[in-house]
Amino acid sequence: MDVPANYEPFTPETLGQRLAGVSAVTERLGNDPSAWRVEEVGDGNLNLVFIVTSADAALVVKQALPYVRLVGESWPLPLSRSFYEYQALSRQAKRDPGMVPQLLHHDESQALVVMEYLAGFKVLRGKLIAGERVSGLGERLGLFCARTAFRGSDLAMDAAERKADAALFLGNTELQKITEDLVFTNPYYRAADNWHTKGLGHFSKVLCSDARLKTEVAHLKRRYSAGAETMLHGDLHTGSVMCTDDECRVIDPEFALYGPMSFDLAMLTANLLMAYFSQPGHREEAECAPYQAWILKEIEALHAAFTKEFRRLWAEERSGMLYPASLFEDQGHESTAALQELLWEIWRDALGFCGIEMHRRLLSLAHNADFEEVADETLRLKLEARTLMMGRELILRRGETASAAELTVMARHFSGRDFT
Amino acid sequence: MDVPANYEPFTPETLGQRLAGVSAVTERLGNDPSAWRVEEVGDGNLNLVFIVTSADAALVVKQALPYVRLVGESWPLPLSRSFYEYQALSRQAKRDPGMVPQLLHHDESQALVVMEYLAGFKVLRGKLIAGERVSGLGERLGLFCARTAFRGSDLAMDAAERKADAALFLGNTELQKITEDLVFTNPYYRAADNWHTKGLGHFSKVLCSDARLKTEVAHLKRRYSAGAETMLHGDLHTGSVMCTDDECRVIDPEFALYGPMSFDLAMLTANLLMAYFSQPGHREEAECAPYQAWILKEIEALHAAFTKEFRRLWAEERSGMLYPASLFEDQGHESTAALQELLWEIWRDALGFCGIEMHRRLLSLAHNADFEEVADETLRLKLEARTLMMGRELILRRGETASAAELTVMARHFSGRDFT
Repeated sequence: MDVPANYEPFTPETLGQRLAGVSAVTERLGNDPSAWRVEEVGDGNLNLVFIVTSADAALVVKQALPYVRLVGESWPLPLSRSFYEYQALSRQAKRDPGMVPQLLHHDESQALVVMEYLAGFKVLRGKLIAGERVSGLGERLGLFCARTAFRGSDLAMDAAERKADAALFLGNTELQKITEDLVFTNPYYRAADNWHTKGLGHFSKVLCSDARLKTEVAHLKRRYSAGAETMLHGDLHTGSVMCTDDECRVIDPEFALYGPMSFDLAMLTANLLMAYFSQPGHREEAECAPYQAWILKEIEALHAAFTKEFRRLWAEERSGMLYPASLFEDQGHESTAALQELLWEIWRDALGFCGIEMHRRLLSLAHNADFEEVADETLRLKLEARTLMMGRELILRRGETASAAELTVMARHFSGRDFT
Repeated sequence: MDVPANYEPFTPETLGQRLAGVSAVTERLGNDPSAWRVEEVGDGNLNLVFIVTSADAALVVKQALPYVRLVGESWPLPLSRSFYEYQALSRQAKRDPGMVPQLLHHDESQALVVMEYLAGFKVLRGKLIAGERVSGLGERLGLFCARTAFRGSDLAMDAAERKADAALFLGNTELQKITEDLVFTNPYYRAADNWHTKGLGHFSKVLCSDARLKTEVAHLKRRYSAGAETMLHGDLHTGSVMCTDDECRVIDPEFALYGPMSFDLAMLTANLLMAYFSQPGHREEAECAPYQAWILKEIEALHAAFTKEFRRLWAEERSGMLYPASLFEDQGHESTAALQELLWEIWRDALGFCGIEMHRRLLSLAHNADFEEVADETLRLKLEARTLMMGRELILRRGETASAAELTVMARHFSGRDFT
């Protein structure tokens, strides 16, 4: 692992001094670091996260460690992920203004990003576990997925610029390898660091013994690895979204890569479906049913907004080399069929990736609090089994599920079944 | 255009002195440049090509110019194409040993590659126009396409190494732009530098007024631009192949890029089909029919060899992250269905790219001698119209053509029709 000579992991004691020379910081917090409060609050798997507060303002400092925080130095991970996160945030800020924290400073050799503190925002996953609603959630995230997918692709960008960008993010190999292994491979064989809820082994075997399923998964992995269509967030689960009651922000794009336009949308859908399936572990029937219905409504809103915005961008911002107006509108031909087929491909691929994400969060290394926090093991097993079986259905029948409405019908159906 | 300060285009007079200090050259030609004969023989569109001969040996020196040779300084083209050609040749030499000229020297700032002189070899296109056969042609090129496609992909390579390689070739943007424009776009609208045989305008209009066709072409362009599966030659027409009566070499990969595994195979197929369709312009019926039959047999051999070799590599060299044995063979499951579906996708995409190449060589800027050298304009028009119409059929019905045998039946059918 290449660690720059001047890199050091900061502590609440040393960070203030480092930031005292950064004008973007002192402009906000004032010039006296001794008057700042620095708190390390990182609870993610990978990084140090500090909140720095003064009488005037607060901001967030995220620093990468040269290893996976959750595991320790035995699992090294390059500091460069901080650079890619910064690059991805910069692009997302342009492609969907206001939807990522404002960037204040980046220090590549310290693997440090300083950004806006999102006052009043909470991690979406926590809100979903707590049964809190976010007004306009699906719609806002659908816009984000459509705008970043469209504006980062050859539909909108200058071709040479997109190539330079794609080349840049190809350097983020080690983070991408985590996705390649943990998401696309490990759930489907006995990988060393797999683990699961007691009793779920039966369902894991059902998946691993399904050669057709694994063939589809392997095709989707190829789509993922070579389908360099747009800059993705790469890890857009509900832990990468922060919300108030009616606002959203997207954070933590350190897994950023060029990949298929369907991928971020798929990750979000999968994590919302997992929130849906896990609800009976968090509240009683009377509260559960309407909250579950709300989640499904937001999934439908996510896809409706994605599709509507993608259509709008197609009509208004299609200035890249793909599906050029010179071939269609300029000759008096509509490009509607091309758009419709592209949207269908995105939808179909999204269902496949969605099913895989639902598998890996229950069978591979990194699990979701949605299920982990269900204390009743018998109930948890029941909920997880439904999730796995619906994931399988999505992968195998992704060509037969025509709309988000059909998807949520399917979710209701699986939620009513007991596979244990 | 960035041209290094010490770059200069060589002449037969100045080249010897430059090479006198290159040991890889003097080891072969001897130490006395004044005893060498230097001849500029470049007849391609882009570069200077010298043959340097001494009493002992001969070699080829290819030097890029900072513009398109055919057009002049008004069309600048980066010298870096020489670097990409060198990089591509190096990789092809490893992936299919003996199938590219031996590399002797590369000077990046002079945009210079020194390589083996292929004594006794002639450009394949010329041989096809002259009615000369090459024993084993299709089989040998099928092996080349399979080996380079497979061994340059995530089926075989280390994932991080493939990413670094894909990033490298993303720098070859300006050459790739030529393909994006001239191949995938210009044939389907009135691009400024399009030209065609008198009378062919009617058929150009037929294509341009076919919205379904243009939609398929646009989808295929997206597959091409974002399907970064393997390192392609990128311009594998019959002018990029040199042959004796029974040997082949592949040259001129300066358009190299990461793209779909079907692309090189498709370009070759299209250019062999164009050789087939143009034959009545070069010889009388008695000679023409058997020679045409030979070309079709070689097209079938090309695809048979590609498929057979791809299957062999799948069984023996599938060590990359795609379709891993951990998901299939290690669990007692065959991966045959996955392979079959991948081969089907390659075949189907290849037919689409093939049809596009058949269009662009008659309607866009760069045409083929196969047709250009047909002096009888009425006959030429008839032959070209067949080619265009079959190209359209391939693009529109690529999902319905099941085998190379069906493809050659289709070619015979179109060859018997008169569209004029």
